[in-house]
Amino acid sequence: MHEHADMLILGGTILTMDDQGTIIHHGGIAVRHGELLYVGTEEEARRRFQAPETLRADSCLLIPGLINAHTHAPMTVYRGLADDLPLDVWLKEYIWPAEGRTVNPHMVYWGTLLAADEMIRAGTTLFVDMYFFEDDIGRAASDAGMRALLGEALVEFPSPNAKTPAEGLAYVRASLERWAGHPLVRPILQPHSTYACSPDLLMRSKALADEFGVPWLIHCCETRQEIEDVRRQTGKPPVALLDSLGILDSHVIFAHGVHLTEEEIALLGERGVSIVHCPESNMKLASGVAPVPRLLQAGVNVAFGTDGAASNNDLSLWGDMRTAAMLHKVASGDPTVLPARQVFWMATRGAAKAFGLDDRLGSLEAGKRADVVMIDLCRPNLIPMYEPYSHLVYALHPSDVRTVIIEGRLVMRDWEILTFDEEEVFCKIGEMAEELGRQWGRDTDWRKAMGQ
Amino acid sequence: MHEHADMLILGGTILTMDDQGTIIHHGGIAVRHGELLYVGTEEEARRRFQAPETLRADSCLLIPGLINAHTHAPMTVYRGLADDLPLDVWLKEYIWPAEGRTVNPHMVYWGTLLAADEMIRAGTTLFVDMYFFEDDIGRAASDAGMRALLGEALVEFPSPNAKTPAEGLAYVRASLERWAGHPLVRPILQPHSTYACSPDLLMRSKALADEFGVPWLIHCCETRQEIEDVRRQTGKPPVALLDSLGILDSHVIFAHGVHLTEEEIALLGERGVSIVHCPESNMKLASGVAPVPRLLQAGVNVAFGTDGAASNNDLSLWGDMRTAAMLHKVASGDPTVLPARQVFWMATRGAAKAFGLDDRLGSLEAGKRADVVMIDLCRPNLIPMYEPYSHLVYALHPSDVRTVIIEGRLVMRDWEILTFDEEEVFCKIGEMAEELGRQWGRDTDWRKAMGQ
Repeated sequence: MHEHADMLILGGTILTMDDQGTIIHHGGIAVRHGELLYVGTEEEARRRFQAPETLRADSCLLIPGLINAHTHAPMTVYRGLADDLPLDVWLKEYIWPAEGRTVNPHMVYWGTLLAADEMIRAGTTLFVDMYFFEDDIGRAASDAGMRALLGEALVEFPSPNAKTPAEGLAYVRASLERWAGHPLVRPILQPHSTYACSPDLLMRSKALADEFGVPWLIHCCETRQEIEDVRRQTGKPPVALLDSLGILDSHVIFAHGVHLTEEEIALLGERGVSIVHCPESNMKLASGVAPVPRLLQAGVNVAFGTDGAASNNDLSLWGDMRTAAMLHKVASGDPTVLPARQVFWMATRGAAKAFGLDDRLGSLEAGKRADVVMIDLCRPNLIPMYEPYSHLVYALHPSDVRTVIIEGRLVMRDWEILTFDEEEVFCKIGEMAEELGRQWGRDTDWRKAMGQ
Repeated sequence: MHEHADMLILGGTILTMDDQGTIIHHGGIAVRHGELLYVGTEEEARRRFQAPETLRADSCLLIPGLINAHTHAPMTVYRGLADDLPLDVWLKEYIWPAEGRTVNPHMVYWGTLLAADEMIRAGTTLFVDMYFFEDDIGRAASDAGMRALLGEALVEFPSPNAKTPAEGLAYVRASLERWAGHPLVRPILQPHSTYACSPDLLMRSKALADEFGVPWLIHCCETRQEIEDVRRQTGKPPVALLDSLGILDSHVIFAHGVHLTEEEIALLGERGVSIVHCPESNMKLASGVAPVPRLLQAGVNVAFGTDGAASNNDLSLWGDMRTAAMLHKVASGDPTVLPARQVFWMATRGAAKAFGLDDRLGSLEAGKRADVVMIDLCRPNLIPMYEPYSHLVYALHPSDVRTVIIEGRLVMRDWEILTFDEEEVFCKIGEMAEELGRQWGRDTDWRKAMGQ
């Protein structure tokens, strides 16, 4: 007698990322109702289950989906608009004016679909967003079949989506109610930063997060300037300010965490705060090198984020994993820090843990949600293979991701996106970019390059 | 009346990389006898030329082929064999023993074909190799249709291919004669380093380079340890030693150049020595950060190399370009250093200049050799496009390279390698890797992952 499953994935090597680091050759996975029903050998999977759909994974690695723990998905629309500039010129002369003119539900919906396209193709199955009009971002994620944690950026001043902090908080409350029970999308609380939010807004947003039992993420300690500004405004640096407000606990996540003292690192470890490391954004904007090896030593949980495409400029986590592994070796002078397996753990288990999702995501184990990524190993950059973690972190290209399953649903199969029309997305973005480019007196190149 | 061409490439945007930085929309290229006969508009190309073969380049960028100015191609066989280790453990316990047991003409031939596969797919059209049995590496490059500068590693002690330095020099002389006039392959002189070569070998190799009018490349100032060792052995640090031997001139190239004083940088500028920057290898092995912005300020010409796949671990120059642009921003605290266009110049023109090939390679201009790479812009990570250089350096994935032409010959068309059988290469490497993995008590995963 066979048990019924919705899908079987047979063959290949499974990197389970369970606590024992189990690797299963000739693997077999059974999926039912969006859940991993069974993870083990092909032989046993065949004996126990039958399913209307079977995927072969020969010559493939099967890994849990990657988690992009900090991004601004719609900023794909500004990808490459302004690079190689001082931070204040970049922000004040390009990004803020561009946002002022273009951020609306249409832009964030299509910008997010473009981001989803890029992220799915790079094996990311969950992204944690911070932007405006997050309900429309959730709509795009849901249409793409991607998992998303929505973070409406709460700020003290008028945002494109809220005239006042109170309006912002009301939007998030309504959003939390609207998305309740959705299998893929969940709002969380994301006050922008300690310089853009009053202590009152910080505390009220934390109270709302606690009321709904959701995480609270904030840009924190990204630049030296920020720390000076906050100290001048409030008399305290950001970490001390948040601690004095009673906010720091294990549901709190800092994006960036570049400039931290030893005392602050110890405090974060004690309080159970997680850090989202965004090495490429921090390097490109010359923000600094986050003290990741010291954070890990202090027991701080660390995940990875790409940040937005206006600063990175791509949304592939593979780049950030690889860059982090190399950056901290050269920064510390020690080639043994951040070994490949630890880096890959951070992008899967570490991220799941940061957002309280470790019981559902981050590894391929029976009972967790079925977010499975299939990597094609028949690629010149992945041959030979002595050690799979090394390949994932140091040698993989995003295009080696072949098939992506989220919540048990095929969203990409053999490099074909199944959930939306890529061409339509490209066209919508092209139109927006052309208008934006004109405003900067730029030749957007788009139509010309496309031969139009 | 039409002029005859062998191939026309029509449509798309041409990044010529000429001295004016000309960008041509609706471009047209005519190729004859491996040479760029015409680079201009599609309209004029259509009016003036006819050819038996026409490639459409709509929705594409056309760029000159990238030049990988320092690699050890056959080391693809050791890719991922040993990572995250101290340099001496990595070398002494893994790489040298592996080389001692496996380096032979068979290994270097197939290892180079695997490297060629990966490099062609990443838009590299010329690689500068340093290894052993370089004639077999040249044979593989020639079979793959790739351009190569061969560098038999000259060392004081017995190498896998030469019992004595004199034997090594004789091999290179014979090789220089054997490959004379070959359109793709040319030996150059590559003494390994100032610690592995006597002053006599350094000088005799330079005399041979000068006799044949070819470049002379050496690993130099890669680690602090190396500088100390050379100072202890010879009483001088490497740069002063080479200068005292009268070797430093504009035909000399240093691979790495990580640890250089201000005086040494000024001297390299005066002497016209070029540096091959290998940022990813230097980061991963924790060797240090080369002073690239200061080198460029001092007028030193800088190119990029991936180094071998045992240290990088892939052979895509896109990674090194991107990493370099980000690394020097964070290292200097200045987000304006190494802007994208300068980085791309280094990987094309800078590299061609380093090896005295600027009249033949490095840009798309009539009269130069026809090494042309077509990038597909219809990719989610490349949309929208405001500025092509930004995309090339910060957003491109190697798989966006669609078609590659070297010396006027199609070696990859629409992602299909046309010059050799990839599957055969994968099998040969798989066999070697399985044997190697066993020697380290490793489960190579290869056959299991492949479901065998």
